[in-house]
Amino acid sequence: MKIAIAQLNPTVGDLAANAEQILATARQAAAADAQLLLTPELALCGYPPRDLLLNPGFVMATVQQLTQLARDLPPSLVALVGTVEANPNADARGEKPLFNSIAQLADGRVQQYFRKRLLPTYDVFDEDRYFEPGDRSNCFQLAVNAVAMTIGVTVCEDLWNDEEFWGKRSYEVNPLADLAAAGADLIVNLSASPYSVGKQRLREAMLSHAARRFQQPIIYVNQVGGNDDLLFDGSSVACNRAGEVVSRAAHCQPALTLVEFDATPRDLQLSAIAPRPEGDDAEIWAALVLGVGDYARKCGFRRAVLGLSGGIDSSLVAAIAAEALGAENVLGVLMPSPYSSDHSLADAEALVANLGIRSQVLKIAPAMTAYDQILEPLFAGTEFGVAEENIQSRIRGNLLMAIANKFGYLLLSTGNKSEMAVGYCTLYGDMNGGLAAIADVPKTRVFSLCRWLNRDRERIPANVITKPPSAELRPDQLDSDSLPDYDSLDDILERLVAQRQAANEIIAGGHHPETVSRVLKLVARAEFKRRQAPPGLKITDRAFGTGWRMPIACRHPEAKSPAALVEL
Amino acid sequence: MKIAIAQLNPTVGDLAANAEQILATARQAAAADAQLLLTPELALCGYPPRDLLLNPGFVMATVQQLTQLARDLPPSLVALVGTVEANPNADARGEKPLFNSIAQLADGRVQQYFRKRLLPTYDVFDEDRYFEPGDRSNCFQLAVNAVAMTIGVTVCEDLWNDEEFWGKRSYEVNPLADLAAAGADLIVNLSASPYSVGKQRLREAMLSHAARRFQQPIIYVNQVGGNDDLLFDGSSVACNRAGEVVSRAAHCQPALTLVEFDATPRDLQLSAIAPRPEGDDAEIWAALVLGVGDYARKCGFRRAVLGLSGGIDSSLVAAIAAEALGAENVLGVLMPSPYSSDHSLADAEALVANLGIRSQVLKIAPAMTAYDQILEPLFAGTEFGVAEENIQSRIRGNLLMAIANKFGYLLLSTGNKSEMAVGYCTLYGDMNGGLAAIADVPKTRVFSLCRWLNRDRERIPANVITKPPSAELRPDQLDSDSLPDYDSLDDILERLVAQRQAANEIIAGGHHPETVSRVLKLVARAEFKRRQAPPGLKITDRAFGTGWRMPIACRHPEAKSPAALVEL
Repeated sequence: MKIAIAQLNPTVGDLAANAEQILATARQAAAADAQLLLTPELALCGYPPRDLLLNPGFVMATVQQLTQLARDLPPSLVALVGTVEANPNADARGEKPLFNSIAQLADGRVQQYFRKRLLPTYDVFDEDRYFEPGDRSNCFQLAVNAVAMTIGVTVCEDLWNDEEFWGKRSYEVNPLADLAAAGADLIVNLSASPYSVGKQRLREAMLSHAARRFQQPIIYVNQVGGNDDLLFDGSSVACNRAGEVVSRAAHCQPALTLVEFDATPRDLQLSAIAPRPEGDDAEIWAALVLGVGDYARKCGFRRAVLGLSGGIDSSLVAAIAAEALGAENVLGVLMPSPYSSDHSLADAEALVANLGIRSQVLKIAPAMTAYDQILEPLFAGTEFGVAEENIQSRIRGNLLMAIANKFGYLLLSTGNKSEMAVGYCTLYGDMNGGLAAIADVPKTRVFSLCRWLNRDRERIPANVITKPPSAELRPDQLDSDSLPDYDSLDDILERLVAQRQAANEIIAGGHHPETVSRVLKLVARAEFKRRQAPPGLKITDRAFGTGWRMPIACRHPEAKSPAALVEL
Repeated sequence: MKIAIAQLNPTVGDLAANAEQILATARQAAAADAQLLLTPELALCGYPPRDLLLNPGFVMATVQQLTQLARDLPPSLVALVGTVEANPNADARGEKPLFNSIAQLADGRVQQYFRKRLLPTYDVFDEDRYFEPGDRSNCFQLAVNAVAMTIGVTVCEDLWNDEEFWGKRSYEVNPLADLAAAGADLIVNLSASPYSVGKQRLREAMLSHAARRFQQPIIYVNQVGGNDDLLFDGSSVACNRAGEVVSRAAHCQPALTLVEFDATPRDLQLSAIAPRPEGDDAEIWAALVLGVGDYARKCGFRRAVLGLSGGIDSSLVAAIAAEALGAENVLGVLMPSPYSSDHSLADAEALVANLGIRSQVLKIAPAMTAYDQILEPLFAGTEFGVAEENIQSRIRGNLLMAIANKFGYLLLSTGNKSEMAVGYCTLYGDMNGGLAAIADVPKTRVFSLCRWLNRDRERIPANVITKPPSAELRPDQLDSDSLPDYDSLDDILERLVAQRQAANEIIAGGHHPETVSRVLKLVARAEFKRRQAPPGLKITDRAFGTGWRMPIACRHPEAKSPAALVEL
């Protein structure tokens, strides 16, 4: 039996277009003699639909779209389509109003629903907000060419509770074990699993372990595309009963792949295996390009604008934007102040030439003078400080927004994760934008991405990579005046943010107690800035986005200071 | 037996100060011969601690603080203290790592824990992210003067699942029914229940119904104070078995109140009943004053700054800030442009005089000229439009931030809920601030609050209330040029946001289909602005804050247009 794996890129809420995408793929699959079509989790509404699910009208529209889709599908095909299902017993039993379900479509109608059993509530996930967990194992019989097989259906998280693999349980039940016990011949997993660096290795190790443990071939289908901060990398994969990868779809691209299930020996045949990206930098690059491109497209933008300081962060974002939208659709704006060094302008101009993007120089001195003059009654006699530095950054942010407003461009902000962590960025200044393209990329990774980008030819000017980082908001300023070196800082942040280590553990990891204390305090105090940041593309296990929910008006016992906004 | 109800105002994460507050209250209670002290939910760490709970170090520090608190408490007292409890079986059973518990402290140590059973995951609540629900009914025996009584312990949401009262279930079990069946003499409910307009009426009706239904006296203890966007209004209340209110603590103020439980007839005596605020305006006013004051104090600010346009929104926020922080600690900045009318400046100056706040006039024309000059190479030949309007707003936002940065003031933004809904506000302009004081107050309520404020003497100049609203970003501009009248707009928004009505339902409610369609589109398109807004004080059942989780890059089937950022 031929099974088609549709690695789709839905737009959240765009029911008609998502249904059309499923339909077009189904027709291709049917033409290739597939008997079963698999789509990602919630493929019909896109993942994550978030609070759209709280609108009864939205749920009703989804149900109607599904009914129509079932009618339109090629009759030769059984399709499993991710969708929401109303819970008719919610009010009587005190349950949640919806299920996160897979609809089995065949013969022109919805045959049955399979309900997701394990609902994640960690990190970016809020599934308990909307969904009741399914309370039973999900199997169906499919008879093809007089051979009947039992297919077990699981949804995303249902796969992620193997206590043997993880060394602990995250949920009471393991749906895979239940399906194996029920005599499934094949397990399918319909997912919308967000990207993070190196996650595919983990997924394949986990799938392989489960296939061997339960002696089940497993097909894992993932969504692809960017939806706000979340990137979905596709990389749908199938394992045979021996735990060997027998099929893999491309990283960060839509795909339709076919696998063949043999009645004897009741296993998946070896099929096409797309190569993995060559290293983490290549993997992250593709994810960021996808994220910028999809955010722009799904919001209705064709062009982007960003400020070019001659520094490494804005250079990287310009390169990503050029790749995602086409160089001709990217406008880089150079906004030198009297504090800008000559090499900054030259470096930015070299970048523009390398990438082939459009550019414009706007000198900000007249606006600086105007603000000084306006603020004179209040600021006379005070010293130049953070307030004046921020004014420069905000003049630039204001100019960029004026251009974005005037011409309908998407403004991309260029701050990296290390800056966002310690607040080394100006709210309403360089933080301005519709999307923060590298907000989850630590500074050390920014360097490594740029070196990787230059592997064949220079795209990021060499001087941009080698010169010491500076905000250039006062004469001879360097990042290292205010911050620990980025190798130390990024290691401290990785321990603090991703590993949730306490101060004493970070110090035990080899960092100076004063540095650790300073960084912890900075991170706590920058919470109010991060709260107002644009969505940032998530590439790590813990990003400062929808999965980071810290109070602002609070005291962190370890930061030993109020999270005050005094350096706003 | 005397029971002390501690309506406390903790700061999230400030364990030592929160413990000290509990201790000071306990000493007062003991001095008044109370035998039992009740505190709010999670009183030790403050509610909501949010992702602080994901740091094992934070949980450990809380446990240590609780142990110390138990040692320090007056020996004559039994105290119920809201705190987090580690779940030792989490990894083995696949459960969440913590319980939201009440610790019973007596004789110098923690005697036992009572676990919250119903965990809310709607609106602003994410309790399934952190907590495992308790799986048993919570009772303890308290013997006083040779009379033993059974006290049933519930935590906040445990009270909110009475299917008789609501006409439906929200959870499978009703902890009150279990406690009544177990023979409790008194039920206590330790809460952190956020404020919304009119909610106290609902709480008291629900409590009264439960007391009568289960023939149980009930004491409900609520947190007071502002924690980021959430306001807790206190108003702790006790009902006797007949469902009559026998005690009520003040609205929006810390309080220690005492109630007496009689062994015969096993009921609560009538005690002190604080009056309810006289009407919704008085109630909202007190909540907003509390919220601004607490946010400033808990973030470490003594003073605030805001822009005064002469309009009604900034006038109201100035009045709130003056009440919360003292008029001498509020700086109003008047920033006229060439498009500002004469009366705007005069109205703002009258307000300054009425409130007795400090003020400063800064004319923004030089900065407008500077931006025009800088942008000339790109903007030459284009028409004056939204981009230029936004520049003015952003110059003002930039000036206010410069003042906030220079002098360490909290910047208050002044946008109302109606504006935030339809995006009639400028990102990085008038939206700038550490706190959005009236972001959840609809425009029609802004008017009603200002009229109420003037009930004895003029605080808001009469002309501010009577003149037609205008953003004054181009000559002769009026809000009504761009928006439906505010009575219609607020009714449409109430139906859309709070009642989650679909377009056809809103139209059936008496609104013009074109107006409804336009408003739906505006609301969808403004999502990116709201995402970057400062925290806004929540006063309604559905605010655009932590409880509003909408995708940005999406298509709302009913808005019939991409949620594009083109008017950023």
